[in-house]
Amino acid sequence: MSDKLTKTAITPATHTTPPAKFSHGVRKGNILQVAGQVGFLPAVPGEAPTPAGPTLREQTLQTFANVRAILEEGGASWDDVMMVRVYLTDTAHFAEFNELYNDYFADLTEAPAARTTVYVGLPAGLLVEIDALAVLG
Amino acid sequence: MSDKLTKTAITPATHTTPPAKFSHGVRKGNILQVAGQVGFLPAVPGEAPTPAGPTLREQTLQTFANVRAILEEGGASWDDVMMVRVYLTDTAHFAEFNELYNDYFADLTEAPAARTTVYVGLPAGLLVEIDALAVLG
Amino acid sequence: MSDKLTKTAITPATHTTPPAKFSHGVRKGNILQVAGQVGFLPAVPGEAPTPAGPTLREQTLQTFANVRAILEEGGASWDDVMMVRVYLTDTAHFAEFNELYNDYFADLTEAPAARTTVYVGLPAGLLVEIDALAVLG
Repeated sequence: MSDKLTKTAITPATHTTPPAKFSHGVRKGNILQVAGQVGFLPAVPGEAPTPAGPTLREQTLQTFANVRAILEEGGASWDDVMMVRVYLTDTAHFAEFNELYNDYFADLTEAPAARTTVYVGLPAGLLVEIDALAVLG
Repeated sequence: MSDKLTKTAITPATHTTPPAKFSHGVRKGNILQVAGQVGFLPAVPGEAPTPAGPTLREQTLQTFANVRAILEEGGASWDDVMMVRVYLTDTAHFAEFNELYNDYFADLTEAPAARTTVYVGLPAGLLVEIDALAVLG
Repeated sequence: MSDKLTKTAITPATHTTPPAKFSHGVRKGNILQVAGQVGFLPAVPGEAPTPAGPTLREQTLQTFANVRAILEEGGASWDDVMMVRVYLTDTAHFAEFNELYNDYFADLTEAPAARTTVYVGLPAGLLVEIDALAVLG
């Protein structure tokens, strides 16, 4: 830790420009933080972001893909993730979300990440938001 | 940080299997992340998890115990905790929760952790959820 | 990381005593965690904390100032921040909040932090809460 660490923004090609001055992900040293991701389809230049959907399954799988794109762009993978924060909008989605989660992470080789899941409000049309903290090395 | 770091799942004997593919806690290097804990009583094999209760006091003390079990299983203690995130379901619980919190942490020897408290939705019957980030060393 | 790291509480002079046994910020090694900050005006000894306001703009700018005071007291700046968590109480505030956010961070020299924004409940009269994780070095 004696060398000066540089903070780097992570911007996958699939992602739209954030609606405010924040990064989709940042890495400094061996810590990589992924911003809250929702189920937006890959960015189309000149068009507003559009969520996958309308099902929970479609939005969730797209959200996972969006988190993963940032991890990989930053040199990490799901195996490096320490914490996943899941924000759902409806308690009725919990069981289906967990099934999708289990299937998606069935092949993890390292220990699965810790997780917190809570029910909050999200902008209209969005059913799920996920952020992640990774430690590389 | 030049050695390859290993990520390890932390699973206290008192804890039920998580309902999805996540860990109750994970440690990598000197960072330990505790997943969102609720006030489930110690696991009984073959039975569904049951929350302590029904009072806020009972659930909160059980939740603290569940966080602590993970910290200790991972070689840490409350003294190592940097951040505690508290999720309550009712603003009317804030004052009582703070009293319980103050009593519980009365004997901390290191500086108390930072904290964020917000009101969110939790599954039926659960009044409080807590997660924690610890840095050891 | 072979030296024993010390955890230090960060308490700016402008801040009131926390309502429970937590710190406004803590630093250990190169990690600095800022607790959830709201838009309280600088503390006046013997008086209860009072939020700036009543507008979103006033509360948000005061909240930014409160986070910044903790970062600076801990030897960090917004440039070191990896993650900002924003808790709003009303989806109608999102656009204005983002404008304030963009203006406030217009002069960042390092990459902007990652961010998660969700809608939760906060104590009466509070419109926004923000916490932050910084990695120095």
